[in-house]
This record gives sequence, C-alpha cells and structure tokens, in this order.
Amino acid sequence: MADFRPPLRDIEFVLDDLVDLDELCQLDPEAGVSPDDVKGLVAEYGRFVAEVFAPLNRIGDEVGSTFDPETRAVTTPPGYIAAYEQFVAGGWGAIPFPATYGGGGLPWLVNIVNQELMSAANMGFATCPMLLQGAIDMLLHHGSEEQREVFLPKMVSGEWTGTMNLTEPEAGSDVGALRTKAVRQDDGTYRITGQKIFITYGEHDLAENIIHLVLARTPDAPPGTKGISCFIVPKFLVNDDGSLGERNDAWCVSIEHKMGIRVSPTCVMSYGDAGEGAVGYLIGEENQGMRYMFTMMNNARLSVGLEGLAIAERAYQDALEYAQERRQGRAVGAAKGEASPIVEHADVRRMLMTMKAYIEAMRGLVYITAEAIDISTRHPDPGIREPKHELLELLIPVVKAWCTDLGSDVASLAIQVWGGMGYIEESGVAQHYRDARIAAIYEGTNGIQAMDLVGRKLPMRGGGAVKDLLGMIAMLDPALSRAGDDLAPIRTNLAEALTILADTTNWIVRHGVEDPLNALAGATPYLRMFGLTLGGWVMARRALAAADHLEAGTGDAEHMKAQIVTARFYCEQILPGVKGLVSPVTSGYDTFFALTPEYLAN
Amino acid sequence: MADFRPPLRDIEFVLDDLVDLDELCQLDPEAGVSPDDVKGLVAEYGRFVAEVFAPLNRIGDEVGSTFDPETRAVTTPPGYIAAYEQFVAGGWGAIPFPATYGGGGLPWLVNIVNQELMSAANMGFATCPMLLQGAIDMLLHHGSEEQREVFLPKMVSGEWTGTMNLTEPEAGSDVGALRTKAVRQDDGTYRITGQKIFITYGEHDLAENIIHLVLARTPDAPPGTKGISCFIVPKFLVNDDGSLGERNDAWCVSIEHKMGIRVSPTCVMSYGDAGEGAVGYLIGEENQGMRYMFTMMNNARLSVGLEGLAIAERAYQDALEYAQERRQGRAVGAAKGEASPIVEHADVRRMLMTMKAYIEAMRGLVYITAEAIDISTRHPDPGIREPKHELLELLIPVVKAWCTDLGSDVASLAIQVWGGMGYIEESGVAQHYRDARIAAIYEGTNGIQAMDLVGRKLPMRGGGAVKDLLGMIAMLDPALSRAGDDLAPIRTNLAEALTILADTTNWIVRHGVEDPLNALAGATPYLRMFGLTLGGWVMARRALAAADHLEAGTGDAEHMKAQIVTARFYCEQILPGVKGLVSPVTSGYDTFFALTPEYLAN
Repeated sequence: MADFRPPLRDIEFVLDDLVDLDELCQLDPEAGVSPDDVKGLVAEYGRFVAEVFAPLNRIGDEVGSTFDPETRAVTTPPGYIAAYEQFVAGGWGAIPFPATYGGGGLPWLVNIVNQELMSAANMGFATCPMLLQGAIDMLLHHGSEEQREVFLPKMVSGEWTGTMNLTEPEAGSDVGALRTKAVRQDDGTYRITGQKIFITYGEHDLAENIIHLVLARTPDAPPGTKGISCFIVPKFLVNDDGSLGERNDAWCVSIEHKMGIRVSPTCVMSYGDAGEGAVGYLIGEENQGMRYMFTMMNNARLSVGLEGLAIAERAYQDALEYAQERRQGRAVGAAKGEASPIVEHADVRRMLMTMKAYIEAMRGLVYITAEAIDISTRHPDPGIREPKHELLELLIPVVKAWCTDLGSDVASLAIQVWGGMGYIEESGVAQHYRDARIAAIYEGTNGIQAMDLVGRKLPMRGGGAVKDLLGMIAMLDPALSRAGDDLAPIRTNLAEALTILADTTNWIVRHGVEDPLNALAGATPYLRMFGLTLGGWVMARRALAAADHLEAGTGDAEHMKAQIVTARFYCEQILPGVKGLVSPVTSGYDTFFALTPEYLAN
Repeated sequence: MADFRPPLRDIEFVLDDLVDLDELCQLDPEAGVSPDDVKGLVAEYGRFVAEVFAPLNRIGDEVGSTFDPETRAVTTPPGYIAAYEQFVAGGWGAIPFPATYGGGGLPWLVNIVNQELMSAANMGFATCPMLLQGAIDMLLHHGSEEQREVFLPKMVSGEWTGTMNLTEPEAGSDVGALRTKAVRQDDGTYRITGQKIFITYGEHDLAENIIHLVLARTPDAPPGTKGISCFIVPKFLVNDDGSLGERNDAWCVSIEHKMGIRVSPTCVMSYGDAGEGAVGYLIGEENQGMRYMFTMMNNARLSVGLEGLAIAERAYQDALEYAQERRQGRAVGAAKGEASPIVEHADVRRMLMTMKAYIEAMRGLVYITAEAIDISTRHPDPGIREPKHELLELLIPVVKAWCTDLGSDVASLAIQVWGGMGYIEESGVAQHYRDARIAAIYEGTNGIQAMDLVGRKLPMRGGGAVKDLLGMIAMLDPALSRAGDDLAPIRTNLAEALTILADTTNWIVRHGVEDPLNALAGATPYLRMFGLTLGGWVMARRALAAADHLEAGTGDAEHMKAQIVTARFYCEQILPGVKGLVSPVTSGYDTFFALTPEYLAN
C-alpha cells in the first residue's frame, strides 16, 4: 500500500481555476486570509493528516474501536488518542467557524478541502470531526446565546466532540417515525428517554466530553416530522464555571460490528435508562427540530459526498503505485523477454484513467458545491446569494449520491488493478472497498437523494432552477468550439449529453406532474445521468482553463496538457454512459409493480 | 438474513424451456436418467445444501479456516467436517463423472446447476468441490490409465480432494513466468521444488488425502508457457494396495487473510522444502501442461461465472425478504398513517427488479453455456459438436466476466435495500458483497477475459463464429413480432442492441486488425456490451417460451406472465445500457497512454 500523498497539484488547480477563491476570501475580511494563505494551510494540513492519521488507517480497521459492556466505555485503537490530541493542538477543527468562538473564519470550501484530505487519510476517523462540525453548525445557527457560550468554544477547539442522534430502530429513512421522549421540567430543562442507533462516535475516549444533539418528541407533539424537537444532551453536564459536572444518563449500550470504517464506533445510545431521563436543553423552539436539521443538511450531505472523492483518491494512489511496480506479461510493443509493468497494459490503463477522470470530475464538483455554500450563506448581495442557493440545492443530492457510488466503483477498480493481492486484507485496498460502501447509505441513502432531486429540486421555481443550470453548462459551448481540435471531442460529447439530460429532464418534469411515480421510478438513473453530465461540465471547464493556460504560457504546460487528455478521456469513455440511461428513466413503471410477492421470488 | 431457498421454479423453467435436457440425457444412455430424474435430483441437492451448508455460511466467515504454523495444519470452522462427510456420503460430487470411476454419468449441466446451488448456499465451501472437480477433469482427460485407477475413484467419491497449483508470486495472470522445478528421477517419478500461492483448499481437515496438480518446469524446458508440465503431487503417497503411504514433502506454510470466502483456505504451498523435492508424477507428456490446462479452462471459467449468479440469487433472497418485512415511510397510494413495507417504494422495487432480471439473464446464460459443454464434448455428431464448441468458446469469457461483475453489483444492491443494517456484518448481506468480489479476479481476471474475447474468440473462423451467434439472436425477431404487444418492447430493444453490438463488433474486428491496441483498449466495455446483449437474448427466449405456454394453456399462467414482465424490465431498464458503451469501445486509445507517470498522479 502506498503512503498517502495529498493530491495538492490537483487541489490547487481546482482552487485556482474552477472556483473564485479570491472572492471567498473576501467574504470575511476580518479573517484576513489570501488565496495563497489558504493553499499554504491546505498543504500543511495535508502533511499533517498524511503523517499522523494515514498511518493509523490500517490499525483502525484491524483492531477497530471496542466496547466494554462492564464500563460501557469505547476504546479507540492504539495511537488515536495521541493523534486526536495533535488535531486539537493544531486547531484544525476550528478553521471555518467564527472568531467569536475561537474559529478561523475561513471559507467553508477550505474546510471541505481539509475534510477530503482527512477522509482520504483515514475515513473512519474523519467521521469524528465531521459529526462534530455538524453539531457546531447546529448550535451556531439555532442555539441560544447562552448555549453557544457554554458549548461552542470547547467544541470549536475540539476539546469536546459532538454527535447527531436521529435514527431509531423504526425510524431510519423515515425520521418522522421517531419515538424518543422529551418531557419539560419546571426549570426549563427536559428529560430525555429513548434509544438511538447508528450514532457515530456516540462514545469514545478521545475527548473529555461529548455533546449529543438528540431529536425527540414532547408529549403533546404532533405526529411525524412536525413534532420533532432538538435537544442538547451532554455526556457530562457543564457547571456554571464551565467545568464538567455530573455524568448525564446518556450511555452507549453496544457498538456495531461493521463491514468498514471500523475505527468509527457506531453506537446504540440509551437515554434515561436509570429512571428520570437524561437532562437535555431545547434548541430553539419545540417542534422545529426537523426544520433546523434541514438547514444543516446541505453541509452534511456534501461532507458525505466528498468521502466518495476521498476514498477514490486514496484507492487510486494505491492502484497507481502497484501498477507501476508490478510486472506481469508483455505489453504491446514492449521488448521481448521482459515482463512489463502492468500500467503499460491497455486494460489496466483504462482502469487507472477511469479512476483519475472520475476523481477529477468529483473534485471539481465537490469544490464548486462548497463554493456555493459559502456564497449562498455569506455573500452580502442577495442577488448573488439566491441563485447560488438554488444551484446548491440542485447540486447537493447529485454530489452526495453520485460521488459516493463512484467511491465504491473506484475502490473496486483499485482491487481489480491489484488482482488477487487486492483481495488480501494486508494490501489495504480491500479496506477502501469496505470503507467506501457506507457512504451511499448514510446521511440519506442514495435512493433518498434521487427522490429529493426529482421530487423537491427539479420543481424549484417551476423548473427554472434546473433550466438555468443546464443553460450555464451550454454556455461553455462557444469557448469549447474556439479552443481548437484538442477540445472537439469534449465539446461534441458534452453537447450531446446536455441535450439528452435536457430532454430527459423535460420528460420527468412533465410525466412526474401527471403521476409522481413516473418521476420516482426513474429517479436513480436520472440522478446518475445528472451526475455524469455535471462531471462533463467540470471536465470541460478544466480543459478550457488548461487551454487558456497553454495559450497564455502560464502554469506547468505538461500538467495543462494532462488536464485536457483526462477531460477528453472522461468525455469519450464515461460521459456517453448517459445514452444508456434514457430508457431506464423514460420507460415508466409498468414493470415495477406487476409482480406479486409470490413471483418476485425465483 | 433469510434462510436459503433453492430457486427451483426458475431452475426448472430454464431446464424445461431454454435448454434441451431431453437430448442431454440421451448423451449417456447408460446413465439412464430422464429430465424428471434430473429435476428430482436437483431438488434433493437443493434441500441438502439449504439444510446442511447454508446454515454454516456465517460461521465460515466469522471463524474462517485457521492455520497452525506449528503443525502446518489448517482447521475448518466447527461443523464443516460433518457437513463434508454428508456430502461424500450422498455421492454428490460424483454426479457428472463416468460410471467406471463411480460416477453418475449425468450431463455437466446438472453439475453446473448443483454448483450454483452449493455456491449460493455457501460460496466459500463450494470452492472445495469445484477445485476437486477440476482436478478430476484433468486426470480424466490427460492422466494415464494407471493414474486414473489410483486416484480417480477416491476423488470422484470425494474421499480425497484435489487442488490446482498454478500461481506463483511472479506468475499470476502470466502463468508462463512460473519457476517451480521438476526433476525427473530414474524411476520415472519427478521431484518437485518451489512455492505456489493462492492455492484454494491446499490444506484442510475435510479429507484424508489431497491430490495436488502442480505446474512446474523441467530443467531443459523452453521458456514461457511452452515449457510447463503438469504433475500429480499427493499430500500422502499412495501404496500399491491403495492405502495411504508416506507423507509427501508438500506443505502449507501460511494462509491468506482475505476480504471474503474466509472458510476457503487460500494457501501458500511449499514443495520440497525438506531437501530432495516432493514426489510428483507427470501427467501426459512434458511441456504440455498449458495445453492440458486449456482443455479444462472452459469448465473452470463457467464454474466461476456461476458464482456471480449464485451469490446474486442468495443476496436477492435476503433483500427481498427484508424489503417485504421492513416498513418505512409511506408509498405512493398507501393509506395514511401507516408505514409501508419498503418493497412498495418505487426505488426499492427498481433495485429488486434489477436484481431479479440480472439473475434470470445470468441463469439462462450459464445453463445454455453448460449445455454447450455437454453437446460439444459428448455429442456423437461432429456436425453438431463443432458449432456448439464455437458457441461455447465465445460464451465462456462473457459468462465468466459479465456474471462475476454482476455478482458484486447485485450484492451491492442487496446492501442498499437493507440500508444501514446491510453494513452491519450480522445481517449477512455484507458477507455476500465481500465474498462476491473475488470472482472477478480469479480464474483469469475479467480484464483477461475481455482480452480473450477480442483477441482469440472474435477472430475465430475469420469472424464467422460471432456472426453466427449474432445471426442466431436475430432469428428470434419474427417470433417476437408475432407474439403481440406484450413483447413489443422486448423486440424493439433487443433489435436495437443487436444492431449496436454488430456494428461495434465490426469496428473492433476491423480496427483490431490494423492495431491490436484498438481491440485491447476497448475490450472491457465491449465484453459488457456483449454480456448485456446475450442477457437480452436469454430474456427474449424466456418471454417467448412463456408466451407459448400462455397460448397453449400449459404451466403456471402467473409465472409465465411474470417471465414476460421481467424480460420487459430487463429490455427497457438494463439492455439499453449498450448505447452508453459504443463510444468507450470505438474512441480508440489516444487518451490511454498520453500521460506520463508524473501526471498520472494527481
């Protein structure tokens, strides 16, 4: 297995040429950072995660986090406590948060780049700061001033971690079905009783306190999502002087034995088992919990989408190194009598280029989406904020689902490049394949994302939002036509994909109005088509930027040529996949529900 | 996890309507079995594997086979020794072999159906009888009469198992690079020295003896594949009276820690470590080992291809049961206030129908391929044998690669249907996903299969063989057009796919002659296109047979209608994927080799 090497050249290319980092840096002038500062910071963080967290990735999998039923404690594998201390000491978790709470005030995009690096170095660990940031985000937006003062400084610093407690055994995709109870006390606090499952880092030994954000129902709450409230339930209550007080009745009762991300303890949490209920503090108002959750959803889904990118990058590095070292067979044109490095075989090269092209498409898309978060939440001009927000809403389900599907696909290709050795756990690539698979499930399964895209996002502004996005992609055409022969296959294939996507979008909007099942049945292949086309857009923008650099004589010419080659590979080898997705979207659902349970079985 | 239920209804449909079981039964009249006997036997074997081997599947994964470096022994998990005894007592391994050696003389197809059942029940265990059958096959075809008399009766009965020793650390896909040495002794035996890796069931505690078939080089052998000989190297030498003699110097030195099929010990085998070399007996002539291997390759590759089908069936059963039990959210049209079984959600139904359609396509293709083995090896008329052999040669790489890729895809869908629970090992579906992944690698990686298809199979008889196959598929068209509206979408989509496959085949043949890299670069997407289209052929034949039954009033009408629905689903939802594969095959390889190692990295 290759040492993890932060892919800084490509990260910087995207930061320089696909997003407007200058503008983002100016959103918070007090932070006083320049694009160069950002790139320096990212490089430093890359070194840090490569040196400290990447080497712990295998032991995280082999040993995993363990649970002691006696003490109800979770122990992380050797090395993690010290590594987390370094993470806290470096202030790495504070980067995107307001200075008021000890944060750095940097763009969310910077945080996303850093999350990518951490997820690539150690996906199982990365879920810990990721969930913590979600909890911080919730308190920042919806906590009271007092709550923010009590909890945020230590959470922003990373001294305390945070969790999100949504899922229950009967309430997974359907959060509205949850049953955990919250009863208001005379002092204004609540008592929380119930069980939550799938709580990431619900218990661990990395930090002195854990701030659980728990969704629950008050006794008189309306049914469904409209009756959900959100509570702060700290593992240890916090005294007035900020010191840790009583142990709250919030306990881990078991952890799951998962296929991957085994360092990440996935806890069953029990609240109020001892009798009176765990002490909780209401965030905002009662029955508004789901609304608050929705405001954080875009961030959370982008953070999961980037896991697909991150694991793909890591798996690609492992595959590329192996393909360059491993010799087997003789490649076409190679000298007789000597085995060629397998990177010279056409089919291995196809796999590597496929991985690389997907990674470049994903990275562009993820950073563009992060930029949309920054602009849509922090830009002073609503005329700029609002269209970006629409764009963001459209991109999120696609980024989440498409990138996480690709994470598994690329990890699978890495195993295939390694051949039999890839199936052996010691190679490390098997772990990527196992780790990657969760990302298509959590934070809204990819099926849920597809339903979100067709059911909530396409109808935005009567279809105007998606029309604008497609129009924006089409606007690349003149530039692509001017850029000469090298970009011609990119132009042709993108134009064709765009026409197909536009036609299919029209079909789904029209027939989805007649009968929502038409849209729901075709949602998953439609999302894939959308993702492939957005990938084509990203790759075309990369190629155009590279062509501009070549014309201007700026940048590393070989790198710019490589950008154009990879964009062309994507547009010839991957993007035409949209053609195979038209029929799956537009054939309706007659065949879906025709079989009775008796004949669904074979 | 659902109990494994042998999918007998679909198996019998394929045996009755897609292959000519009558004719196969007549190939060996002495065996004296009828199609009904075969179906009875398959049903009984299905019960046996469901009762005995399926319940051991989880412990096979959790405990796995273990190696003791002290004794160099491999211990299988609790229950396997007793289960294997029942397998031997039932004579189940003997079914397809000649009566002379205690076999049942039944068609190979019957054996393939049984292998599917065992692989679905317990894929990790199934590799043991599968490899044993490979070793039997080799001895039957190429062993001397004496060798056959000494070894075959106990191997056919299953009292002894067998292995295939090809791979070495530097000789994987390139078998010709192997270095294990074989030195002829005065008594005509050989002494074998060297190390082999990835030896399935190279050591275990299920049988009293293990007959290793080992590829090695004599001192004066020519380099490459032309200098490979094949030897019998028993774990225990066999005395003249058939009793076990001396322990041979053939030892397991370690086993691999694999991502899946953990009950199957993957051994590093060392021959001749103690000094003089392990005792080996030459099969046939020196330097003919690869030729002998080639005669067995079709059987071996079909046996791996069916693992994709088998794991897909098992995963589908688990997903279907869960989808019918698990309630979450409200499906379109469902009564308010009650959660629907997730099988009622369109996107879940899409996943289930996709799994089912792939399974039906694969099962038809696997059995048709097995029929081609029987006819091409045992039919008395060479005018019938030879075209079947051509068909077989074309089908094999597609069945191996396409079905094993689908095995992973379908297992992944099963996880997705289960959602978060699917990522937990206790669900059992995670194991299918891990188990399935090896099949795309061993017995010739799927990349090797694709190269075989474009490099060796398309050129057969100057392209005549593939032309005949495509012509045979086209001949369904009149029947499809007569069968009425229900089959119209099947007809249209199959015709379109066939045109695309024919055009793409022409491209690859023409441009592959100019420059073999054109064919090699496009081989993998071309094979996928080929597989999708063969799947369409199978589904169309199923639909036609079902339409015939409906017209004649034979069979279970609901089942026949279900066949047509699933065929239509395949042709509308899956088959059009061929359209997305044209560009990947026909865009050439300019972009493949343009990046230097420096810029392959990100």
